[in-house]
Amino acid sequence: MTIAGQCPPWTPIVDNRLTPNTPAIPLRRTYIMRIETSFLFDLDGTLVDSVYQHVLAWKEALDEEGIKLSVWRIHRKIGMSGGLFMNQLLRETHGDISADRVDRLRRLHAEAYKRLRAQVCPLPGARELLAALTDGGTRWAIATSGRMETAAVNLEALGVDPAKAVVVTRDDVKYAKPDPDLFIAAAERLGVPIENTVVVGDSIWDMLAARRCRSLGVGLMAGGYGIDELERAGALRVYEDPADLLLHLDEVAARP
Amino acid sequence: MTIAGQCPPWTPIVDNRLTPNTPAIPLRRTYIMRIETSFLFDLDGTLVDSVYQHVLAWKEALDEEGIKLSVWRIHRKIGMSGGLFMNQLLRETHGDISADRVDRLRRLHAEAYKRLRAQVCPLPGARELLAALTDGGTRWAIATSGRMETAAVNLEALGVDPAKAVVVTRDDVKYAKPDPDLFIAAAERLGVPIENTVVVGDSIWDMLAARRCRSLGVGLMAGGYGIDELERAGALRVYEDPADLLLHLDEVAARP
Repeated sequence: MTIAGQCPPWTPIVDNRLTPNTPAIPLRRTYIMRIETSFLFDLDGTLVDSVYQHVLAWKEALDEEGIKLSVWRIHRKIGMSGGLFMNQLLRETHGDISADRVDRLRRLHAEAYKRLRAQVCPLPGARELLAALTDGGTRWAIATSGRMETAAVNLEALGVDPAKAVVVTRDDVKYAKPDPDLFIAAAERLGVPIENTVVVGDSIWDMLAARRCRSLGVGLMAGGYGIDELERAGALRVYEDPADLLLHLDEVAARP
Repeated sequence: MTIAGQCPPWTPIVDNRLTPNTPAIPLRRTYIMRIETSFLFDLDGTLVDSVYQHVLAWKEALDEEGIKLSVWRIHRKIGMSGGLFMNQLLRETHGDISADRVDRLRRLHAEAYKRLRAQVCPLPGARELLAALTDGGTRWAIATSGRMETAAVNLEALGVDPAKAVVVTRDDVKYAKPDPDLFIAAAERLGVPIENTVVVGDSIWDMLAARRCRSLGVGLMAGGYGIDELERAGALRVYEDPADLLLHLDEVAARP
């Protein structure tokens, strides 16, 4: 409360009185309601340069099963849960969706991917981005539609030890992307509210899942989607790759 | 000329006299100034499903030369002339651009592509689209940034005999896309003015080249670019693949 004639201990920055005669509400200089942002990262195409190898591995698997599908259509589905991806593809191509066939396709894909895996390495800036967040005290987790079996190699290349960092895989949830379960599980394991997280991903499925759980999607072009596709799926901002996101980190979250 | 009191042999559809007292200019019912559209097709990613195999073949070649480059960046350059593509990549990665190195990369790419080539087949509707144009009396040609050496297999899969159809390759022109030389040469060999052609392609380099020679670009998503990228590069319309273009052909050219 101010007393007329006495110098107040605070200085109002903005005079927000509704009418000039209403006494001003004191503005305090403590920061309340600050959002402490945590980051939930997709893996393939976001931290690791592996999307195109996955695409051609699926192409090989589908060819072997006699399912004719253009490669760009496979590309546009990548990032979904593998099971959902196959169900949707088989529905679209009016194919048989037996559990046997899905299992066979999954195995053929895994075999083909193994042959291409030698090419796969972290995306520019991926390791540096994770290190910068850790150094700054910002919490982060990895949430991937892949299984730990295939994710392990990529995590090793990134220098991420799943025994120490929070890593949620397809094995941990009932439904993968575009369902938000993976991101919700990751936020829970970090101990942060999902509304205070940023989901970083390269596919429109990451962006849809982010919106569905009230996280905030940030897109990376490193998986081969265009800016427009990611923005239309709800991305707040789109960057080229982890290096580009690191350069512009203040645009999406204040540093702690 | 009309004579007062006599019924004219024609009926004016629109009275386009500048003032009501000016005698009307007779409108004739013959069709003049009709544009007979011819089609100039790109090959890879437009008629044949081969873009992703080319992308990973370039990735393998670049890796072998110790040039680290994210796969999506290679994808976004595909469709350019191979030489230009490599010069631009090497400039961007600040690498050495010796003729030796460019030759080595080209050879490594060709070898890697040969291993992936078995997967490559015509895109849905490609053969049907070419057949429909031929049946309708519409002229068409193929203009590719690739060399006949690699194009031959794809032409065979499409059922196109380069001895009978007009096919222009990298071997025939000094500069490939985004320079318009390939399309200009194709129009010349068809004997049609370039202004009456539609260029069908999957990459922004096709669209840029089309605008540079005053052709009309029509984009296909089958090479993995998004609608927005193609439209921003000047595409009049964007379709999914040749089958989708065939369904909507009247949107871009009247049938003869």
